[in-house]
Amino acid sequence: MSRVLVTGASGFIGRRALAPLLARGFEVHAVGRAVAPDGPLGVVWHNADLLDREDRKGAVDAAGASHLLHLAWYAEPGRYWTDPVNARWVGATGELLTEFAAAGGRRAVCAGTCAEYDWSAPSPFAESATPLRPATLYGTCKDATRRIATALGPNLGLTVAWGRIFFLYGPGEHPDRLVASVARQLAAGERAPTSEGTQRRDFLHVDDVAGAFAAILASDVEGPVNVASGIGLPVRRVVELIAEAAGRPDLLDVGALPGRAGEPPDIAADVGRLRNEVGFRPSLGLEAGLAETLEWWQRRPR
Amino acid sequence: MSRVLVTGASGFIGRRALAPLLARGFEVHAVGRAVAPDGPLGVVWHNADLLDREDRKGAVDAAGASHLLHLAWYAEPGRYWTDPVNARWVGATGELLTEFAAAGGRRAVCAGTCAEYDWSAPSPFAESATPLRPATLYGTCKDATRRIATALGPNLGLTVAWGRIFFLYGPGEHPDRLVASVARQLAAGERAPTSEGTQRRDFLHVDDVAGAFAAILASDVEGPVNVASGIGLPVRRVVELIAEAAGRPDLLDVGALPGRAGEPPDIAADVGRLRNEVGFRPSLGLEAGLAETLEWWQRRPR
Repeated sequence: MSRVLVTGASGFIGRRALAPLLARGFEVHAVGRAVAPDGPLGVVWHNADLLDREDRKGAVDAAGASHLLHLAWYAEPGRYWTDPVNARWVGATGELLTEFAAAGGRRAVCAGTCAEYDWSAPSPFAESATPLRPATLYGTCKDATRRIATALGPNLGLTVAWGRIFFLYGPGEHPDRLVASVARQLAAGERAPTSEGTQRRDFLHVDDVAGAFAAILASDVEGPVNVASGIGLPVRRVVELIAEAAGRPDLLDVGALPGRAGEPPDIAADVGRLRNEVGFRPSLGLEAGLAETLEWWQRRPR
Repeated sequence: MSRVLVTGASGFIGRRALAPLLARGFEVHAVGRAVAPDGPLGVVWHNADLLDREDRKGAVDAAGASHLLHLAWYAEPGRYWTDPVNARWVGATGELLTEFAAAGGRRAVCAGTCAEYDWSAPSPFAESATPLRPATLYGTCKDATRRIATALGPNLGLTVAWGRIFFLYGPGEHPDRLVASVARQLAAGERAPTSEGTQRRDFLHVDDVAGAFAAILASDVEGPVNVASGIGLPVRRVVELIAEAAGRPDLLDVGALPGRAGEPPDIAADVGRLRNEVGFRPSLGLEAGLAETLEWWQRRPR
């Protein structure tokens, strides 16, 4: 049985990745800032601050894993695009990979982002064809980390894959993110103001994002793999689907908020690699996924 | 008077950078693993391990500099191309820039490398035209650091320039490097075996490399600047010049060592930016510089 160490395991994607990894037969060790309260049984938790060298090395050595699913990063909404702490995560990731290899690790999969791509390029974005030109510090630091991880791999005897996450949503998302904020307002019977939402985005349910990472980890695919649905929908249509699930399209104020200047019109993924090389297909359509997310907010005690 | 903090100040380039910085009117603070034994008077030394967060922050805060000349990196000959510690320097550099800005820093110049370029591209390599495709972990980590530093700059209120060092030589170089090893052997009256040396390289004396960095720091130029002579000479010609200075061309065994597989035929810099935008010209020609280096080895107690 292979053993995997999951970082960011108490985060939005990480806590959803534990069950699919267990289902694939992995023995699962998890590092997080907290034990995920609703996590599955059978996971061994290690408490560690991954930006602290001794902490990190202690967890890596204690886990002694052959596989690494590295999801941890700074993700504070509104701040993660520009916060200099992004640069710390670049160094910490390089050190993590080095320590993981020294402890017997053989395969690593890290979380990348569609923000590595040139957002002015035509969609769909393909791993092998779309230029990389991150416009933000976050995208730059993820891009830099991928370059370093790719170069480190052969030096460390690791195979490395890199899942580029596009847009995601689902139960438990930070309440300030788009889908969560609209679902939360509608669940509370409040009005939900949004921008015109003409820009197209590729949304995937967090369970499918997590499932895709488990599939990539279990495969022998190397390099970048888009983790997305392959379908770009206008953001307006996404919020309309939430309102329809709530039965309250009247609460939606589309156009009440200003759009962001320079917002790219279309960001969607080519998911050929994920489908054909990794062999993963999402299990939840957008309509069902958004309805489930709305229900989660409706059930949630306020 | 502006104050500069120099990292790697006890290293090959760093110790030569102190005098030209003083000459330009900087108040000079230096971080190194050791106080440079032959360093100029008037330099304030801070002992710190830059890979240690508290050490590093302590030195940065104590210096309180407006300018940063960041030369420190892992440089062990034979190992620096592939050692995973390169990745630690990426993270440490991002953190150093962040801490420097927080302590009042406004301008930073870092040491890059010609190994960031695609070495199969035609020479001369130009900052704005030659593709970047590092073939080594060292080059990848320097390239990644430049991307991060460039993105961090505006977030931190720093202007950032990046001096891409080509090939260098001079007194005090590590004895295993090309010019040093040939000069050392000839100075000792020993035979000096070399490869055929048909590949062309762009060599600059370490005093001029250090002077160029001082000039870049004092300028307001941002982004990458090649630090080189602009002249690519066959390596064979370089060692012949050393042998001629020694008066012992008979000791040279050109072709006695095998060439390295995949050695790029021609690496030379376009130095237009350094000359025209920074306004720097080297003061030492190759012939005089190599003669001076040979003399240093001849004077050195064995």
